[in-house]
Amino acid sequence: MELRACLIGFGKVGRSFASLLIKNKKILEKINVEFKVVCIYTRKYRLFNDKGIELDKAIFSLDNLGERFDDINDIMATKNIDFLMDFSVSSFTNGEPGYSLIKCALNNGINVITVSKAPLALHFRELIELAKKRNKILRYQGTVMSGTPAVNLKEILPSLVVDKIRGILNGTTNFILTKMEEGFTFEDALFEAKKLGYAEEDPSIDIKGIDSAAKLVILANTYFDENYSLENVKISGIESISKGQVDEATKNKSRIKLIASVEKDNLIVQPKMLKDDDIFFNIIGINNCVEFDTQYGRILLSGPGAGALNTAYGAFSDLILSIKQIFNR
Amino acid sequence: MELRACLIGFGKVGRSFASLLIKNKKILEKINVEFKVVCIYTRKYRLFNDKGIELDKAIFSLDNLGERFDDINDIMATKNIDFLMDFSVSSFTNGEPGYSLIKCALNNGINVITVSKAPLALHFRELIELAKKRNKILRYQGTVMSGTPAVNLKEILPSLVVDKIRGILNGTTNFILTKMEEGFTFEDALFEAKKLGYAEEDPSIDIKGIDSAAKLVILANTYFDENYSLENVKISGIESISKGQVDEATKNKSRIKLIASVEKDNLIVQPKMLKDDDIFFNIIGINNCVEFDTQYGRILLSGPGAGALNTAYGAFSDLILSIKQIFNR
Repeated sequence: MELRACLIGFGKVGRSFASLLIKNKKILEKINVEFKVVCIYTRKYRLFNDKGIELDKAIFSLDNLGERFDDINDIMATKNIDFLMDFSVSSFTNGEPGYSLIKCALNNGINVITVSKAPLALHFRELIELAKKRNKILRYQGTVMSGTPAVNLKEILPSLVVDKIRGILNGTTNFILTKMEEGFTFEDALFEAKKLGYAEEDPSIDIKGIDSAAKLVILANTYFDENYSLENVKISGIESISKGQVDEATKNKSRIKLIASVEKDNLIVQPKMLKDDDIFFNIIGINNCVEFDTQYGRILLSGPGAGALNTAYGAFSDLILSIKQIFNR
Repeated sequence: MELRACLIGFGKVGRSFASLLIKNKKILEKINVEFKVVCIYTRKYRLFNDKGIELDKAIFSLDNLGERFDDINDIMATKNIDFLMDFSVSSFTNGEPGYSLIKCALNNGINVITVSKAPLALHFRELIELAKKRNKILRYQGTVMSGTPAVNLKEILPSLVVDKIRGILNGTTNFILTKMEEGFTFEDALFEAKKLGYAEEDPSIDIKGIDSAAKLVILANTYFDENYSLENVKISGIESISKGQVDEATKNKSRIKLIASVEKDNLIVQPKMLKDDDIFFNIIGINNCVEFDTQYGRILLSGPGAGALNTAYGAFSDLILSIKQIFNR
């Protein structure tokens, strides 16, 4: 069976996703799927190829791999697209371009897999309800903890009641704080994070706690079945954490971590001093973690929380799970 | 739709499972399932009731809730059973009674959900292949880390390649070691574990590392697609760990933990000294954890690893996932 996809964004994450499609061709074949990327839409390119864009070439350059189109909405309406893969960087002010593209896809009967936080952090319930109404899939594992299945975990825990969620949800800030413990200044640590490709395009999104807050909103809505938005989160970032404070914490066998938590409508992102007996204490570098307080006790999941390949894997796992869900494979 | 189940074993776990069925009736109704327990088979009771055994009464006493039957194999062959729920305590010598019961169920076209480690630790591949051949479900989340989804996690991580697994897989020994750090003697700590219902019926299974080894075999076979058996594991337990050794570790900012690990055909269970920067360091009491080294980094899952309700929840989650899988709900 042929499935046709439209990719939004083709930066590091989008290209990593393409490489995963190439590498895991056999897995798709095993479930009898030929997955064709027929459209790639970026700031610079508007590429359509009805026979499928050659991904092994696309990873290096998008030139000459198809024809140019005018309107992405038109592509979604007329070109028999099955999946919109959204790797766009969307604005935390209005959720665009992801918000409109996801709506357009769902309204055209197209399943959506997104790694873009802003649309879901601002319009969660609207988008989930639209997907439900159109009987289409909307998956978003890649938005939280990249490929570490903080979102998809819910599916293997049926009837679980979660009372509280606590997490270290931003890789960049955790990386910076770890580097500061090792002796780096804030600026040098941030530079290092950028160099390694962990930081968001605009690093203030990480540092001011907005990225953590967006992920917290998405987790809270997922596990509590709520309709929180970014504006419901009390946010403090790590921008004012000094080297002195980090050293002071180290001296007291503590660590400063940017903690996101939600309990009874209180959504908070703020730096916290953690003692060395806290299970989060040893979550260092770009690692993230999330802890769920449930009626059966406390469950912790930790793993990489950033990196293009990890985020792409989040989308790839969503794709495989979607196909299994739709076609019962 | 009516689904008919046979329950093997009705001790603490079996009764907890019954209470979960009662409590979560609405969740089953929502997926249009009426789940009837028509048979309960224990050492003492052989109870059959075609209309469904009244579970709210059964939790207190099995007397007068149905008719007595002679042969469980006969029930499975003739009474339209859909699910065998195996809560038996099976022997680590031969896997019985679980091994034969699971085979009988699958051969009669009955789906199996088991929390019984021994059959899978001794005959993993045979049972998995039999289920595949009969096109029936064999699920076993409850065998490892009880309700914390160490087994089912695999399903939301498609195409993941695991190179190494390391875990604290036995709640009782971890509880005992934690209590010894707090000043308890080994014997007092074990007594406490028994009192709280954490220890296996025969606590030497926990203490000698056999329970951990069985779980390691099950995880390794699940994630590596192998056919290891209990005899492939090099096992040392905590029976010879002295109070002095525990105190010495504490003095060195270390902790002794019973670690199960597998890498390249080396399956090992042994007490290990962990430094305080180890992510396992703060896994205390009956909590368990498992760490997977994958091509996308290291993923850690931790949570309760023992307790009747948690184990029953493992089986309950398997049941819901099975129903979704079979009927695509």
